Amino acid sequence: MKKLNTSPISGAQELLPTVQATFDKLKNRIIKVYKRHGYFNIETPSIERLDVLTAKAGGDTEKQIYNVMKTSEKVEHASEGLRFDHTVPLARYVCAHENDLDFPFKVQQTGLNYRGERAQKGRFREFYQCDIDVVGRGKLSLAYDADVIITMLDAYSTFHLETPVLARISNRKILTGLLAALGLADHTNEISHIIDHAEKVTPEQTKLSLKDLKLTKPQVETILNFINLRGSRSDVITALNNLEINNDTYQIGVEELDLVLGLLESLGLGDQISADMQIIRGLDYYTGTVFEFVLPEYKNIGSIGGGGRYDNLTAYFSDRPFPGVGGSIGLTRLFFVLNENHLLDTSSQSLLDYAIIPLSNDEIEYAYNVAHDLQSNNYSTTVIVTDKKLSDKLLYAAKVAGGGIVIGEDEIKTGELKAKDFDTGTTSVITFTSNDAPTPAPKPATNDDHPTVKPDEFFSDDNKSFL
Amino acid sequence: MKKLNTSPISGAQELLPTVQATFDKLKNRIIKVYKRHGYFNIETPSIERLDVLTAKAGGDTEKQIYNVMKTSEKVEHASEGLRFDHTVPLARYVCAHENDLDFPFKVQQTGLNYRGERAQKGRFREFYQCDIDVVGRGKLSLAYDADVIITMLDAYSTFHLETPVLARISNRKILTGLLAALGLADHTNEISHIIDHAEKVTPEQTKLSLKDLKLTKPQVETILNFINLRGSRSDVITALNNLEINNDTYQIGVEELDLVLGLLESLGLGDQISADMQIIRGLDYYTGTVFEFVLPEYKNIGSIGGGGRYDNLTAYFSDRPFPGVGGSIGLTRLFFVLNENHLLDTSSQSLLDYAIIPLSNDEIEYAYNVAHDLQSNNYSTTVIVTDKKLSDKLLYAAKVAGGGIVIGEDEIKTGELKAKDFDTGTTSVITFTSNDAPTPAPKPATNDDHPTVKPDEFFSDDNKSFL
Repeated sequence: MKKLNTSPISGAQELLPTVQATFDKLKNRIIKVYKRHGYFNIETPSIERLDVLTAKAGGDTEKQIYNVMKTSEKVEHASEGLRFDHTVPLARYVCAHENDLDFPFKVQQTGLNYRGERAQKGRFREFYQCDIDVVGRGKLSLAYDADVIITMLDAYSTFHLETPVLARISNRKILTGLLAALGLADHTNEISHIIDHAEKVTPEQTKLSLKDLKLTKPQVETILNFINLRGSRSDVITALNNLEINNDTYQIGVEELDLVLGLLESLGLGDQISADMQIIRGLDYYTGTVFEFVLPEYKNIGSIGGGGRYDNLTAYFSDRPFPGVGGSIGLTRLFFVLNENHLLDTSSQSLLDYAIIPLSNDEIEYAYNVAHDLQSNNYSTTVIVTDKKLSDKLLYAAKVAGGGIVIGEDEIKTGELKAKDFDTGTTSVITFTSNDAPTPAPKPATNDDHPTVKPDEFFSDDNKSFL
Repeated sequence: MKKLNTSPISGAQELLPTVQATFDKLKNRIIKVYKRHGYFNIETPSIERLDVLTAKAGGDTEKQIYNVMKTSEKVEHASEGLRFDHTVPLARYVCAHENDLDFPFKVQQTGLNYRGERAQKGRFREFYQCDIDVVGRGKLSLAYDADVIITMLDAYSTFHLETPVLARISNRKILTGLLAALGLADHTNEISHIIDHAEKVTPEQTKLSLKDLKLTKPQVETILNFINLRGSRSDVITALNNLEINNDTYQIGVEELDLVLGLLESLGLGDQISADMQIIRGLDYYTGTVFEFVLPEYKNIGSIGGGGRYDNLTAYFSDRPFPGVGGSIGLTRLFFVLNENHLLDTSSQSLLDYAIIPLSNDEIEYAYNVAHDLQSNNYSTTVIVTDKKLSDKLLYAAKVAGGGIVIGEDEIKTGELKAKDFDTGTTSVITFTSNDAPTPAPKPATNDDHPTVKPDEFFSDDNKSFL
């Protein structure tokens, strides 16, 4: 029979168990930190109606949406697709459940998102994103813009990377106001796009792109100077004020940025933040604060997360304003690049506490009873039942567990079990402390009134067709 | 502007945060129990190539597969779809990574699966399944059939249901052998199907369905008697032996069932298991042990999980046999029916430890500093920043947290914070124990060398367009 290809689809993560354990650990830490900062978990369906997905998607994102339909259906009639982020479904969720939620609604979402990207190394078509958002009803304090950044910095800190993480922070209103003051309001989208891509091209190319828009030389110079403004709060705010831009939106943007940075500084996070006018964020739904996290010592990695303030995201669902601010860690991509750059401690294998090896069929029930006791006492424990040599079983045991317990006739007779620590090579007699008995021997198997199990049947036998 | 429908797609779970917290708790408990029994987590992509999905799907399942494609693609050319279970992807995974895995490979998977079912109450098109499997290379001991059942019973026990859970256990070989002995080997599939549906129809209808296959009266009687065999290990094994069926497959099936039940009994699980000849399990890839979990006091609920032994699942990928045994808890459906039947403790809300309420803008930075300290000491803490009345903020605080801390001028002056326990109504002064200092006061905000934040800006202001 011709065999099927066993590789997973392109652009998806598939890990071996030990690596998966490291991924899971990071994911669970993020979730835990988000909760510690007051963000409650929700899950929206991974499938949404296409009108919901396309309402705010636009452009490239819309082309990347995966439609979902049965074989009997036609793609022209597709009405559902896979979500490409958590933010659009969140807008729907908030409007759907408005009356059952408390506002400001601090919420986290971790799950798979999907984008029909061309598959290439490090690009994923299905990937985890770990999001937090704060959504207000009617209005939402700027303090929550800082709250999201604080929380995400704390999440990254649990990775214990040996390289610093930096939050680059700006506010969309500043650029919007600047362009209005320069008489370039009509070009806001194109210019934002050029600035957003400035780090991927040379400064000369950025200059040319701006000139292509028929900007005057002073306009180009002002913009180029502007996007190079970065540094501490006091330096950047001072520089922004010194530009003397006479525009309300600009002033408000600078004021908002100052407030957000001030709160972050007051928490001693000054070293981990930078005001940075190059930060735009691609998505067009951002209306105020925008931020992006990077590893400054690894420029090749680029953004490892980001987010911003969006004041109009729910407009497609409700007339009532639900301003929000949120951020997202693209965990699948982050895990991939951290691994590529040897920034993850992959030695930290997730081992079981004990592997129990019955020497023959005669000890299987006893072994499972010992495992049962250990498990009841919260020790992760597995029983190894194969017809391999003892040395092979011990090798297997040492791969999956920190300790090994071999059970033979003698152990059952004496009730004394020796646990070998595979790490140190030492052996100790283990005792279990259950509720009131201080050190009871492992519970022996109770076969009293049941027919004796024919032990050799537990092992597979090549002569039998069924094993 | 016409507003979009805010309801989630039909056939998907969408919960409010407090209910989601209960769901998450159950899911995490299952994952933890699985690990405690030695099952390592993996995740395969939720999208697979269609040839992989259809290799073993067959019949109704194949029609229910969701194809996944971009709008620009044609459904006739669809090459990928959403997985409908974890078992088919696992077979691919094991063959793909054979050389990097240790066998027997004890593995768990928890994730969303997708089926194009007609939407109706309690039927889900996307749903969580929590699976465990043990896969051997070449062969796999029967002990693992018991291992899976033991582990799943332990998983259900963490739900603390006030109604017993019962594992109904059989072995496919027994029916196969019986039908061969009756000269009905050619009708095995149809008859299995009738037995599988017997509990959904009247005994009379089952009898008619069997007669429709042109079975003789004695054949029908034998089958009807057979499928009514259920009870303790000793009763059922005795009854099966008394049938004196002279067929090897039958004998082997009875022997295997006896061994599996014996191991379960030796662990004191006799009350939670029942040998039951009505258990078939729909999927045709099962080859030996089959089992299903039910709540005997809630017949309306039906199966709450199940699984079995499959010896040929990897044949599409590899010539080498990888026999396996596994089980699955359909958590989304289970959660739904438990809720419907009031079997879940939904009072157990997942609250934060503290909600901190700054009385005005002047206390926001201080409040975030207190939160930061509490969070560093692992207390989940949120800061409430709204322009609502204090009484409204306290109501909100009591909804999201167990304790509330109001911070005003006095608190900042004295450094003494009073935490109100919303449950008991008592108030206590909280102290934090960090590394070496025994009871340090919360770290005060440090505004020294930064311009003072203009506090009223933190609150939104209706007169400003941007908030």
